[in-house]
Amino acid sequence: MSNAPTLEKVSSNKVFEGDLVKYKFKSEVLGGLDAQFNLFIPHILKTGVKVPVLVYLAGLTCTEDTGAQKGGFLHVAASQGIAILFPDTSPRGAGIPGEDADWDFGTGAGFYLDATKPEWSKHYNMATHITEELPKVIEAAGIPIDFKRQSIFGHSMGGHGALTLYLASKTKQYRSASAFAPISNPTKAPWGEKAFNGYLAGGLQEGEDYDATALISKTSDPVHILVDYGTGDQFYNSGQLLPENFLKAARDAGHDEFQIRVRSHVDYDHSYYFISTFASDHVHFHANFLKA
Amino acid sequence: MSNAPTLEKVSSNKVFEGDLVKYKFKSEVLGGLDAQFNLFIPHILKTGVKVPVLVYLAGLTCTEDTGAQKGGFLHVAASQGIAILFPDTSPRGAGIPGEDADWDFGTGAGFYLDATKPEWSKHYNMATHITEELPKVIEAAGIPIDFKRQSIFGHSMGGHGALTLYLASKTKQYRSASAFAPISNPTKAPWGEKAFNGYLAGGLQEGEDYDATALISKTSDPVHILVDYGTGDQFYNSGQLLPENFLKAARDAGHDEFQIRVRSHVDYDHSYYFISTFASDHVHFHANFLKA
Repeated sequence: MSNAPTLEKVSSNKVFEGDLVKYKFKSEVLGGLDAQFNLFIPHILKTGVKVPVLVYLAGLTCTEDTGAQKGGFLHVAASQGIAILFPDTSPRGAGIPGEDADWDFGTGAGFYLDATKPEWSKHYNMATHITEELPKVIEAAGIPIDFKRQSIFGHSMGGHGALTLYLASKTKQYRSASAFAPISNPTKAPWGEKAFNGYLAGGLQEGEDYDATALISKTSDPVHILVDYGTGDQFYNSGQLLPENFLKAARDAGHDEFQIRVRSHVDYDHSYYFISTFASDHVHFHANFLKA
Repeated sequence: MSNAPTLEKVSSNKVFEGDLVKYKFKSEVLGGLDAQFNLFIPHILKTGVKVPVLVYLAGLTCTEDTGAQKGGFLHVAASQGIAILFPDTSPRGAGIPGEDADWDFGTGAGFYLDATKPEWSKHYNMATHITEELPKVIEAAGIPIDFKRQSIFGHSMGGHGALTLYLASKTKQYRSASAFAPISNPTKAPWGEKAFNGYLAGGLQEGEDYDATALISKTSDPVHILVDYGTGDQFYNSGQLLPENFLKAARDAGHDEFQIRVRSHVDYDHSYYFISTFASDHVHFHANFLKA
């Protein structure tokens, strides 16, 4: 990447004594499109102090606003002194044929991967956007965030993103990962099959690199992972999420319940009402590692 | 009103161990239109126990979903054992000419009054809908809510609604009222002038019956009121809210700071980020009275 582009402040809202700021910039990684993100920065008592950051990845059809508005994360992050970065869920306005045809592919459905099919590979690179580009542009803007202390979490497609970006990182970029109702074994689920066959030249086989179940089975280092899902979740019940597959692969690879907890909650569904109920648990889980 | 109509359950989401249920029914008070509302019912340990209820009135353009999704009230209500009733902000689909022309009048902008102009008076009766009809249909459905223990709060137009329905109640229906950035003196503000001249045969003069500042100046009984607003609120700064007028009228009428607190918060704006920051304060304020 060349020099970091300038961040433009779109809006700012004071919340829990901190600030929720929406920024926009020309994203080189997303092929020159405008990219937006929200950044919650807790109230900082001393100048010169940098805060750790939690990255929140939202699900299909969502934007950078969804988690900020409905997640119920901010009051806990404020009390813990942790920033939260809310990226968008895909590039916007690439103009690729078929991009807006379906709600579960294309716009709003970037799947947190780097596309390798020629028609998508210029723009649909959300993995590099989140792991490399956003930290770079935020640091270059002088915003007091310590990217040496990052963790990552997300919902549904974003839970898939959180688990896979955490497990795939060779630099151990994130200290911990957690997910609400994640797509846990996408090469075996309709949403994942559609995304991988659509974005990746190598289809489902290349998709193994973005499959949390495949990745955990090849991971021997200790991990810090929390997963929550509800038994009333329509997408769990229709086989899109498959958290049991992830849990079995994790246990088979030697990761015990201290390393990976997968919790099933009776009657909770796929909505942000479910997420907000366990929001505090997740932020506190990450605080254990971010503040260590 | 005739016998209570049947409630139809539209959806249900488990949240904080309780349930957020959306209901629909044919509203006699709103001229036979379908009316929807959300009801958060905390987890109840013992059968036969009824819980107190807090009524939340949302602002212009909002629906019964806005406060439930973005307010940040549910975790506190759950921990306090308090139900929250989220009505809609107006009738929907009355088919009155001009009803959908503006965002600040008609659909989404019922102003929590009973209209007296002939073209609006069949449908636009949100005051009676909230104070009489909703308690009646909910009680008739056997939902375990104790309407003898009600309080009311709201945002912007809904803050206006909360203060005025509280102050105008001759039966002291509500134990306490609170508001985020309320339209506090609508007969002196553009939104209020438009609403009162539009809905009321008697215009601004009749509007005095729905003006919190006018009402508090005529109230001598003790009251329990909390108001919060932000100095970064664009509608405060453009003279739509006028909380100082309400505060002055309250003090002139002998209501001290124990009866009425009006708090100004530096840099907070009109958004749900502001509301969520003080959500816990408001629910706890009402809990003092609801659990007494």
